[in-house]
Amino acid sequence: MVYTAIMGYGTIGSGVFEVLRENRAEIAAAAGQELEVKYVLDLRDFPGDPAEEKLVHDVSVIVNDPEVRIVVETMGGLDPAYPFVKACLEAGKHVATSNKALVAAYGTELLAVAREHHVNFMFEASTGGGIPIIRMLYRCLAGEKISAVTGILNGTTNYILTKMDRDGEDFCQALKEAQRLGYAEKDPTADVEGYDTCRKLAILMAMVTGREVDYQEIYTEGITEVQAGDFLYARAMGRAIKLVGSACLDAGRLSAWVVPMLVKPDNPLCGVGDVYNAILVRSNMLGTSMYYGSGAGKLPTASAVAADMIEAAAHLDEHVPLGWSAEKLSVESAENNVCRYFLRITGRPEACSGILESYLGSCGTVTVEELAGTEFAVMTAAMREGDFREAEKKLRPELAAAGCEIVRILRAE
Amino acid sequence: MVYTAIMGYGTIGSGVFEVLRENRAEIAAAAGQELEVKYVLDLRDFPGDPAEEKLVHDVSVIVNDPEVRIVVETMGGLDPAYPFVKACLEAGKHVATSNKALVAAYGTELLAVAREHHVNFMFEASTGGGIPIIRMLYRCLAGEKISAVTGILNGTTNYILTKMDRDGEDFCQALKEAQRLGYAEKDPTADVEGYDTCRKLAILMAMVTGREVDYQEIYTEGITEVQAGDFLYARAMGRAIKLVGSACLDAGRLSAWVVPMLVKPDNPLCGVGDVYNAILVRSNMLGTSMYYGSGAGKLPTASAVAADMIEAAAHLDEHVPLGWSAEKLSVESAENNVCRYFLRITGRPEACSGILESYLGSCGTVTVEELAGTEFAVMTAAMREGDFREAEKKLRPELAAAGCEIVRILRAE
Repeated sequence: MVYTAIMGYGTIGSGVFEVLRENRAEIAAAAGQELEVKYVLDLRDFPGDPAEEKLVHDVSVIVNDPEVRIVVETMGGLDPAYPFVKACLEAGKHVATSNKALVAAYGTELLAVAREHHVNFMFEASTGGGIPIIRMLYRCLAGEKISAVTGILNGTTNYILTKMDRDGEDFCQALKEAQRLGYAEKDPTADVEGYDTCRKLAILMAMVTGREVDYQEIYTEGITEVQAGDFLYARAMGRAIKLVGSACLDAGRLSAWVVPMLVKPDNPLCGVGDVYNAILVRSNMLGTSMYYGSGAGKLPTASAVAADMIEAAAHLDEHVPLGWSAEKLSVESAENNVCRYFLRITGRPEACSGILESYLGSCGTVTVEELAGTEFAVMTAAMREGDFREAEKKLRPELAAAGCEIVRILRAE
Repeated sequence: MVYTAIMGYGTIGSGVFEVLRENRAEIAAAAGQELEVKYVLDLRDFPGDPAEEKLVHDVSVIVNDPEVRIVVETMGGLDPAYPFVKACLEAGKHVATSNKALVAAYGTELLAVAREHHVNFMFEASTGGGIPIIRMLYRCLAGEKISAVTGILNGTTNYILTKMDRDGEDFCQALKEAQRLGYAEKDPTADVEGYDTCRKLAILMAMVTGREVDYQEIYTEGITEVQAGDFLYARAMGRAIKLVGSACLDAGRLSAWVVPMLVKPDNPLCGVGDVYNAILVRSNMLGTSMYYGSGAGKLPTASAVAADMIEAAAHLDEHVPLGWSAEKLSVESAENNVCRYFLRITGRPEACSGILESYLGSCGTVTVEELAGTEFAVMTAAMREGDFREAEKKLRPELAAAGCEIVRILRAE
């Protein structure tokens, strides 16, 4: 029997309690022994709740109880999650967290503290929700040279984009519906501006490279500018618009960004809809592989925490090598990222095709019936972001002189 | 440094040699020590090959060398793979195999021999090629109650079906192309008749349940009867035709079959094309998750073998609990499987709609322009296979009397 504690009895924390109860036998078989929750830390009381008798309000009860070997952190935020987790690790307890803000901000330090105290700091649930991508990377793909990771890493934005595509809604309508269904928070900023995806991508790339990756260095755009009309073109091209966190490793150099992207139909990410997440990995021997599942939600996320607890319980006196060192890997400037560019332009194609070609090279033209006559669109060949930005600057005034205007730009595979 | 040996220097065996050389540093880091191939067993000589100096022709050299701790079996077939693997396990060596025939036929015994000698018998590469599904099941999903597994488990048939769909080819044309490209063997029986998928499904379900599953009990149909015209209807319904190995667990009862199936557009398997494989898992907390990648091929398969070698090297003196016991779990009769049925019928719909409804209940009608006038199709609601077979028997003569005939039956989600 291993005693455990859960810090934070909100959605995920109570989910962990439920998973441990529901799958008690399976978890005991996998861990080699039973997992018993001894304490649940929360400031609130939960009268009548199955966790009621385990409730404590003071973290020192957990930190100072040598019987507790595994602690779950599902409070969210940095304060007091950070000092509480650190205290638990220093007290020789394994910690499993679902808190991506904590991992993105203090992961390097907490991994070092865990190593020093010969315990594990685990965070499967911080990235990809229920998709076991972290364990995948250190258990299954460890012998591969990974060259690229591209993921739909946020369920809220994927739901919104799927809804805009399917029902022709605009961003605000789709967001409201997502909020009504509980998929989006009241303040949706972290999701819709891409910050959540950005933190997850930084964690994934730190796992892949074994070095610290600062999420603040990753160029990030959200989906608030995506328009209903964009989906008309996407559909005409058989493509989907997805908020992707994408990173490449080339000769030790890391490039990465988070941007809405026109994904090709043969990309397995193209069909990933609703609140599902998926992570595409390219590696040198295995080639392309993809991991798909519920990117969020109470029980999937709680199941990922439970998987960490199983691993900790199966290696109680061991430090499992995972994570990254304090050595930093910088993210290259997004100017050097390469993709295709899709431009919606008002005016007559004949008036500006020469101008477009002179700055952007040969482009394919796309029109959709619904918008024909008022606008058209072009797709460039692959080019450097920096080169595109330069070209765009010069292009705009010349287009204006020809009575044309770029009204939307989207990146594309 | 851990010494290893490779038995069988064909496509996969030489791939393993290549992966160990190409990813030497990554593999050493993941395994905690370097892996060195000491012997390569093959009856042939390979002058000029990098493995030349490691070649031996007598398995006893490997079995009797106490320095060799990990042995790879990539010979294929049962004889001599079975006695060789058993001898290695009995000599206290870990064994990793890519040989699904061996695992399906002797897995239970070899797992027991491994346990007895405190070593590991590993077979990641036997199922799903490069998709790390076996490790996924015992490392990542171990705490879940799995209720269903549905997979596209054979790259050859998926390529053929994709090509029939995309290019309107018939089965024989597509098979020839697959053979030309090296995706299908000269004798394609094991692939196209579904036997390969059947063995893999049995291995997966033995992993999931921890009990022996006899592949011979799984009802299996191949894709040789799938016709170009079937894809016209599939497309009209937004569906894809896939050879799926599908299994459900309900209250400890296992149902399973391998059949070509009309897959729904919102099933993530629907978009899995070409030689790719994917495995969809339903479990009680995580919900739906899917694992996608190269189902076959030299390097992906070799990479899966290398992943087993890493795990063996990281647990050299440990028995890693994986696999299943000798206790048998029978597969329920396929008569009890439930699905929808899609029937193509020649003749006039008006002439037989009453007959169809009286035996099959209310059905949806599907027509496609290309075949209109000569035939139509109907889709039943979900029903038991046994009930459908009974109905079909009575239906056929009555349809004949009305001038109609069922020309094709396909199962559907």
